[in-house]
Amino acid sequence: MSSAIPHTYHLSGRFWIESSQGMFLGQGRVTLLERIREHGSISAAARSMKMSYRQAWDQVNAMNSHSPAPLVSSATGGRGGGGASLTETGEQAVALFQAVKRDFDAFLLQRSTTLQL
Amino acid sequence: MSSAIPHTYHLSGRFWIESSQGMFLGQGRVTLLERIREHGSISAAARSMKMSYRQAWDQVNAMNSHSPAPLVSSATGGRGGGGASLTETGEQAVALFQAVKRDFDAFLLQRSTTLQL
Repeated sequence: MSSAIPHTYHLSGRFWIESSQGMFLGQGRVTLLERIREHGSISAAARSMKMSYRQAWDQVNAMNSHSPAPLVSSATGGRGGGGASLTETGEQAVALFQAVKRDFDAFLLQRSTTLQL
Repeated sequence: MSSAIPHTYHLSGRFWIESSQGMFLGQGRVTLLERIREHGSISAAARSMKMSYRQAWDQVNAMNSHSPAPLVSSATGGRGGGGASLTETGEQAVALFQAVKRDFDAFLLQRSTTLQL
């Protein structure tokens, strides 16, 4: 409560990309895509995020349903079996999100310089 | 999954203002301030948001502790008794948040026009 302490403020925030049908891509889903790329498997990606295979698969299905083409391609082999990788559309979706994130972070930083109370 | 459906995307997001000591002002706290202004009482404002008096008071105290001056002034009268109103600093905080919100919404809208997948 002391007015002797200088108070400087900054903005924080988060964003996500929606399609006309609802949520498409947020930070959590992009991290899942990046882990699938890294681990080459949905189940290993899920484990690395302490997410169930079912949850990860639901997220992948949700993303695919909001996209002109699937973001993840999974080889046959069934539950926990075959490998998975990002499609070209999947790579484009990750790149799109990261490009928006750079602009979003730049906006927050720039707008933070003019916060006064 | 049909590529016959055109997919258009837009950004959604939220932001909050932090001080160097942590969270200062988000949409929920600003709504609480606006309700205090409207109802002239912290307890009535809390009721209108289905929030407990204790929660509302904790939020007000947290805001006051991150500000050069209190945002809410409450008359004596004890729990649920005296009235409350926004101080000049409180009015400035609400105006600051709404000004940032206009810029934030404009950024999301503008950046949404260039989302392609």
